[in-house]
Amino acid sequence: MIDRYARPQMRELWSDQNRYQKWLDVEILAAEAWERSGKIPAGTAARLRQSARVDARRVDEHEAIYHHDMLAFISAVSETVDAEDAKYIHFGLTSTDVVDTALASLMTEALDIILDDLQALEAAVRRRAVENRRVAVIGRTHGIHAEPTSHGLKWALWWLELGRDRERIQRARDTMAVMKLSGPVGNYASLPPEIEAYVGEKMGLRPDPLSTQVLQRDRHAEVITSLAILGSTLDKMATEIRHSQRTEVGELEEPFSQGQRGSSAMPHKKNPIKCEQISGLSRLLRGYVVPALEDMPLWYERDISHSSVERVMIPDATTLADYLLVQMTRIVEGLTIHADRMRQNLERSGGLVFSGKVLLALVDGGFSRDHAYEIVQRHALAASQEPQKSFRERLLDDPEVQERVGAEKLASLFDVEPYLSQVDTIYRRLGLLTDEGGRA
Amino acid sequence: MIDRYARPQMRELWSDQNRYQKWLDVEILAAEAWERSGKIPAGTAARLRQSARVDARRVDEHEAIYHHDMLAFISAVSETVDAEDAKYIHFGLTSTDVVDTALASLMTEALDIILDDLQALEAAVRRRAVENRRVAVIGRTHGIHAEPTSHGLKWALWWLELGRDRERIQRARDTMAVMKLSGPVGNYASLPPEIEAYVGEKMGLRPDPLSTQVLQRDRHAEVITSLAILGSTLDKMATEIRHSQRTEVGELEEPFSQGQRGSSAMPHKKNPIKCEQISGLSRLLRGYVVPALEDMPLWYERDISHSSVERVMIPDATTLADYLLVQMTRIVEGLTIHADRMRQNLERSGGLVFSGKVLLALVDGGFSRDHAYEIVQRHALAASQEPQKSFRERLLDDPEVQERVGAEKLASLFDVEPYLSQVDTIYRRLGLLTDEGGRA
Amino acid sequence: MIDRYARPQMRELWSDQNRYQKWLDVEILAAEAWERSGKIPAGTAARLRQSARVDARRVDEHEAIYHHDMLAFISAVSETVDAEDAKYIHFGLTSTDVVDTALASLMTEALDIILDDLQALEAAVRRRAVENRRVAVIGRTHGIHAEPTSHGLKWALWWLELGRDRERIQRARDTMAVMKLSGPVGNYASLPPEIEAYVGEKMGLRPDPLSTQVLQRDRHAEVITSLAILGSTLDKMATEIRHSQRTEVGELEEPFSQGQRGSSAMPHKKNPIKCEQISGLSRLLRGYVVPALEDMPLWYERDISHSSVERVMIPDATTLADYLLVQMTRIVEGLTIHADRMRQNLERSGGLVFSGKVLLALVDGGFSRDHAYEIVQRHALAASQEPQKSFRERLLDDPEVQERVGAEKLASLFDVEPYLSQVDTIYRRLGLLTDEGGRA
Amino acid sequence: MIDRYARPQMRELWSDQNRYQKWLDVEILAAEAWERSGKIPAGTAARLRQSARVDARRVDEHEAIYHHDMLAFISAVSETVDAEDAKYIHFGLTSTDVVDTALASLMTEALDIILDDLQALEAAVRRRAVENRRVAVIGRTHGIHAEPTSHGLKWALWWLELGRDRERIQRARDTMAVMKLSGPVGNYASLPPEIEAYVGEKMGLRPDPLSTQVLQRDRHAEVITSLAILGSTLDKMATEIRHSQRTEVGELEEPFSQGQRGSSAMPHKKNPIKCEQISGLSRLLRGYVVPALEDMPLWYERDISHSSVERVMIPDATTLADYLLVQMTRIVEGLTIHADRMRQNLERSGGLVFSGKVLLALVDGGFSRDHAYEIVQRHALAASQEPQKSFRERLLDDPEVQERVGAEKLASLFDVEPYLSQVDTIYRRLGLLTDEGGRA
Repeated sequence: MIDRYARPQMRELWSDQNRYQKWLDVEILAAEAWERSGKIPAGTAARLRQSARVDARRVDEHEAIYHHDMLAFISAVSETVDAEDAKYIHFGLTSTDVVDTALASLMTEALDIILDDLQALEAAVRRRAVENRRVAVIGRTHGIHAEPTSHGLKWALWWLELGRDRERIQRARDTMAVMKLSGPVGNYASLPPEIEAYVGEKMGLRPDPLSTQVLQRDRHAEVITSLAILGSTLDKMATEIRHSQRTEVGELEEPFSQGQRGSSAMPHKKNPIKCEQISGLSRLLRGYVVPALEDMPLWYERDISHSSVERVMIPDATTLADYLLVQMTRIVEGLTIHADRMRQNLERSGGLVFSGKVLLALVDGGFSRDHAYEIVQRHALAASQEPQKSFRERLLDDPEVQERVGAEKLASLFDVEPYLSQVDTIYRRLGLLTDEGGRA
Repeated sequence: MIDRYARPQMRELWSDQNRYQKWLDVEILAAEAWERSGKIPAGTAARLRQSARVDARRVDEHEAIYHHDMLAFISAVSETVDAEDAKYIHFGLTSTDVVDTALASLMTEALDIILDDLQALEAAVRRRAVENRRVAVIGRTHGIHAEPTSHGLKWALWWLELGRDRERIQRARDTMAVMKLSGPVGNYASLPPEIEAYVGEKMGLRPDPLSTQVLQRDRHAEVITSLAILGSTLDKMATEIRHSQRTEVGELEEPFSQGQRGSSAMPHKKNPIKCEQISGLSRLLRGYVVPALEDMPLWYERDISHSSVERVMIPDATTLADYLLVQMTRIVEGLTIHADRMRQNLERSGGLVFSGKVLLALVDGGFSRDHAYEIVQRHALAASQEPQKSFRERLLDDPEVQERVGAEKLASLFDVEPYLSQVDTIYRRLGLLTDEGGRA
Repeated sequence: MIDRYARPQMRELWSDQNRYQKWLDVEILAAEAWERSGKIPAGTAARLRQSARVDARRVDEHEAIYHHDMLAFISAVSETVDAEDAKYIHFGLTSTDVVDTALASLMTEALDIILDDLQALEAAVRRRAVENRRVAVIGRTHGIHAEPTSHGLKWALWWLELGRDRERIQRARDTMAVMKLSGPVGNYASLPPEIEAYVGEKMGLRPDPLSTQVLQRDRHAEVITSLAILGSTLDKMATEIRHSQRTEVGELEEPFSQGQRGSSAMPHKKNPIKCEQISGLSRLLRGYVVPALEDMPLWYERDISHSSVERVMIPDATTLADYLLVQMTRIVEGLTIHADRMRQNLERSGGLVFSGKVLLALVDGGFSRDHAYEIVQRHALAASQEPQKSFRERLLDDPEVQERVGAEKLASLFDVEPYLSQVDTIYRRLGLLTDEGGRA
Repeated sequence: MIDRYARPQMRELWSDQNRYQKWLDVEILAAEAWERSGKIPAGTAARLRQSARVDARRVDEHEAIYHHDMLAFISAVSETVDAEDAKYIHFGLTSTDVVDTALASLMTEALDIILDDLQALEAAVRRRAVENRRVAVIGRTHGIHAEPTSHGLKWALWWLELGRDRERIQRARDTMAVMKLSGPVGNYASLPPEIEAYVGEKMGLRPDPLSTQVLQRDRHAEVITSLAILGSTLDKMATEIRHSQRTEVGELEEPFSQGQRGSSAMPHKKNPIKCEQISGLSRLLRGYVVPALEDMPLWYERDISHSSVERVMIPDATTLADYLLVQMTRIVEGLTIHADRMRQNLERSGGLVFSGKVLLALVDGGFSRDHAYEIVQRHALAASQEPQKSFRERLLDDPEVQERVGAEKLASLFDVEPYLSQVDTIYRRLGLLTDEGGRA
């Protein structure tokens, strides 16, 4: 992934140097296991651990000759150790034993970073939910004003969805936390399962109950799909903020960095470019699902077509997910929420948004549902076309309505409060509000 | 495709009955070709043309036994003709010779319907472009008011893009207008190229210069990708209409059918559901690209994995494209355009949208660009925060600005007209305005 | 989905009639809940349950007028009940309360069918694993012979992966087993959470802790991605069977139905068309992931763009998954396994596949690894080029090898058994073999 | 794209330094145009051309402050020129005027590299077609031996498909060869079309007839889809080579670099890893289609969500296409073609592959088609089960067959030549063979 969208921790994690270091970790642990089983001389592993080093540039030099990265790696490491000990590097192993185990380990580390990011975002979103519980906003369906609701509920909704994302990613991480040292076709013909068991335990990975030359790629696909779903959750949040920052709406405003310049030609503009970036990058995450799924049907005990895909896709997808989460957390924390503007927008329709309650009141007052619907729709339409006289005023002036419902009752319908009546109940069941009514 | 999104013409085109009829057309033409080459008795083809019939239900009955649709078809047709003539049905052909030729023919017919639809939509969009040339609207970037522009330009833009879509689909149709009667592995070992040439000419399809058992699937993939791009164009139009119908914007309104009901609970609502449907269905079109591309790498002279995909994807994608185009044409034709609301929205910022011109005028007046930018941004910010005093008023009250620019000059900057100064030039180069200034 | 790929149970489940029936179930349960809360007259719900009926054709007739399927449904149902009771159909509900709850219920039912199918497939695959434990086959990597292994391990591998698929789908089913009766913007303003709780419990669905007008679409996306991963598992199995049925390989043969015809022109052919169909249809499943993810970022409290997508995608994806599983189970149960051919293929290289063991033996015998590698590669190459003298014979004739390793030791290396030495251990840890050595 | 899959020319093209240089080219050309129109002082452009320089590192330093790459770029360039001249850098332009024009220019350059690569590949594939015209190989459908054909036809087929890919990419390149200097909302309000026309002509790009703040993204989508289709063509070729290198088939062998090591554990293996890499990377190309299509529906006159996508996708997709083409050309040029093995494979079935001709001969000899089919299938099946007696021998021993067809006629059917009878005709119509019978 290009530097612009890569945070240092993730860039370091996926660096060649770190990858080769992980390979070396596997090799040394394998030597320890062989030593314990008596197959290689006592003391070998300890000496390897002390002296073996890997330098990515040296591996590159060897690879230019061998066209095989594992052989290049072994040569480069061998140069740093005693010649006798060098014989036991990669002893009894197949390249993929090391490569696939190391990749799984790096993936779990990357997912752990992502899970930490996600918890930070959840906490920030949760705070917004708690803060905005009683902030009224017009609910919108199809982009059209529907009924008033609590702005906080939007945050609570996102918080819950992020929680589901976390569960999906946690499960994918667990699916991925496996390793294999099972040989060229996965049947342990040249190395006993004990070697695998030892190395797995030391690395915090479960031996895969059965592998071929490789771990099966449904595991990796689950990781990628769970990240793509997360990306689409973030896209949803970003899309709503972008909508809400539109000039005509003005309810939310993403943070503007100190010194940041908006449009070079139009000094008045503050653009939600951070959220637009999130919408964009989430598309890349969606795109990685296709190659991840296509990687699954490898031929027989493996073909290596998945490898080139994964060299690009796995660092890119995890790096983007990390970047997106951290960016979104900054946006959430720095977001300006214009509660006043929410109130203005809510009221701009002259009461039209209360039409649902009016309809019910007319039915309660004795009108048939069809007649009631006709009355409401007629006044709504007139108010839309001639906004000087509002929907509310038109109803108050309608003798038929006055008679059946009464002015007082009618006036009481144009109130936001009833629409928030269940908000505290909802918050309580989500654990966002204690029973005492204070904030959780 | 489900009936809801299938127009009768397309449903008929992709019916089993019509497909088998097309197979029969191929078979009879092939018989004619063989007869001309002297390989089958004179008069056979004419008798077949007269009596051969196919009934999809009868084919189904045979297929339940054979598990092979071509054999079932041949059996069903054979029952309708003289036993002696029946021997020459499918003479020298491979199943796929017939199936793939028929499919290509049906695809070109489906694409011709789509191209007709597209021309109708282009005409409707072009009319909107011509009508709205001088209608001012605020241009928006990042969802934020930018600078005034002509509403008609939006339509002109879409009209041009639809034209590019038409070219892409026309080219894909031409790529697809091929056929093959080249035998089981495509080398004409059992039937000479003359048979293919005759049938192709009669069907208006070019013999593929080289095929295997099948036509190569890059052709079909080009069809699907061109439809997916078209779908995304329609999604763009639908998305802008949905944005513009938002309560806070109110500039466009998609047609509301007579008798149509909006929300059952909220009588005041008019929702852009037709455009939302277009946005939705365009996603399905995007999704078909994946299987279309995966169909390309068939094994050797063919494997049949593409067939099941295509039985679903090709009718679905073309049927959806047809439906989407016709729906969009109805929307465009019935759309309500609120030019007054466009004007109101344009003015609601108290002149902020003219800040670009103000900036240039300050620089012209002698301010350094940085100082000018600072002045404009300061007043813009103040006007946003305390809208009682507009951006325009604040500038007029600023002595420094008064001195360098002058009130008259300043007042002249808050005018929409200069932003439309090049519109006629643009229209002329698009052929949407004659030089006499009248409408093209 | 077209009939060809739809089993009757799934077709019935997704029929319009069944969908409307599910809506009616929700409506009647809601009436019961309202009656319990005292808001509608006692006895209403019981009378509705007794007399209310829905006929899809009648709904269609109403929809042609209203362009709103829920209003059409209510009208159609109302015609079948007492006029007074009709007032309480859809009482206090929003269309989507019913539609989304019903959809979730139908989806869980569809997934339950799929989970049953999957268990049947797992059982069939497990049987193959147990049967073929000691059947030797050459393991292949990159399509090239690698080392011998157990054919049964392939089945065990698939069995494990199908188990992971089942877990993913089970979790997706649980994610999907929610419902909502929370009103137009999800805040229960017009109906208390008790109504939702009652209906949910009766339907075996959890009330979503928070919804907007709709359930959030990450739930549906998880269902689709889990099915797409399953599809790719089946594609993997189908691809291996297709590979193994190749003329040159001939190790597996998919079942040929009684009366089935192969090629019409080439009577000798038996083609793996069932597996090719599975490879094809799995592409469609992969394609649905794109629209499923794009459905997630709905605008504010909902836009309806997801609806058109789901009307096609959800029945299609579940129907295909069901079909694919049942087809694959038939293939697995009817598959012919040519153990003799596996043995022939294993031996055709004249011992080349044992080169790994030879290499180790040479190193054990005192050669440096590089020299050993050179010896093996030289004889291997020669044997490939002049197969009259096999790799094994060439080694036996090499004096240097004879001296260091010895003929007896050398001969013992060309044996399959050592490659199967860990198979029983693996089977035991998978629970496929009891400790007594008998079959589990 | 990671270095492993990036050739130097493409890496250089997409470097930050080169991108900024292209921006500078646009800026200087725009200054020239303004100077010609009299809006900026004579001599300015020439002085800028002489002294203006850009250093990517200096831009980065400024961007860390401004969070706006264009402002950072202008600042960095301004430092290298006379203060008075600096005022005219970016004069009258909007950031995207420069950015989008430069991107289109870079894309056409990248596509020109790809088109050159493609021509080189086409030439290599054409040579293979010409060389292998008379090389017989068994044609395979469904992976099963079908009928003999010419190996050269496979190459001719790929050559034709690559030609269609070239046409698609050439058209996409032409679609992309546009630019825009039309201001913040695309209406030329602050800069006349003449500026755009001048810059476009100098850059070899057509002014887009109409733009918004940006060029419309259907153009970029067409580029990406055409590359994805190309990738799938290459995947098809790679897949066939992989199939043909399988141990059991052995007909093709991808080149093995000098010094290249195969398996570290299994010295006998030569794996088609280059082709597997091509299959893998083509998946990434397919994946980019999703974000490319999703980039199309930008909001109003633009939102910037496409930008982050394109920063990754466009360099990655073009860099991969370049890499894939060059790799495939190397493979094609270095491929070993084992014509002897093709002949062996063709003959291994004991004549089964001639069953189509036998069937026709039996029908010609007077058997009914059904009876003929039954005879052929019976002997074919027996020969498969007891291969000691071949299909051909069984037919020769069948008295019924002998009587009707005769031994001589029968023997003549088991001949490859008739299957190649039309090959020269095909080659001639493709221009691969001159009429004199020599090679074209």
